[in-house]
Amino acid sequence: MMRHLYFHRDSERGVEGTYNWLADELGELGEALKGEDKEAIEKEFADVIAWLASLANLTGIDIERATVEKYSGKCPKCQKSPCQCTF
Amino acid sequence: MMRHLYFHRDSERGVEGTYNWLADELGELGEALKGEDKEAIEKEFADVIAWLASLANLTGIDIERATVEKYSGKCPKCQKSPCQCTF
Repeated sequence: MMRHLYFHRDSERGVEGTYNWLADELGELGEALKGEDKEAIEKEFADVIAWLASLANLTGIDIERATVEKYSGKCPKCQKSPCQCTF
Repeated sequence: MMRHLYFHRDSERGVEGTYNWLADELGELGEALKGEDKEAIEKEFADVIAWLASLANLTGIDIERATVEKYSGKCPKCQKSPCQCTF
């Protein structure tokens, strides 16, 4: 969906510019988390996901596949589920 | 899945500590994007999603629902699909 909505704009902006936008959105999420407005927090989460999807589309990454590959039902560090890392 | 794997650790760390980890992971993604190692980039995307999911679990947010609500098949700013914002 994000590819359909935004790929033409993301392509013009490029990887670095899109990454910088994503970093700004993460800052906005951090600000929202200091407050109590759950709807505002939800919208900031949505923006972070949207910009992360834009960045993944630009770089040819399938985020879901990448995530499931690394976190395949167990912690990639201790190999346990739930995680039992001690550090 | 992230709740099952990590909620016990996320709860101990808290929202602020988890947010700071997420910010660090985004920095690592930025570094990976400067290179050409696609597998490394995929793993950093996976880590950002994982920490974002941890943060969402801690704050009681359903990321998927939040994202679909804001980006429901059209741009939330211009209401078009694809986006036709001019700014």
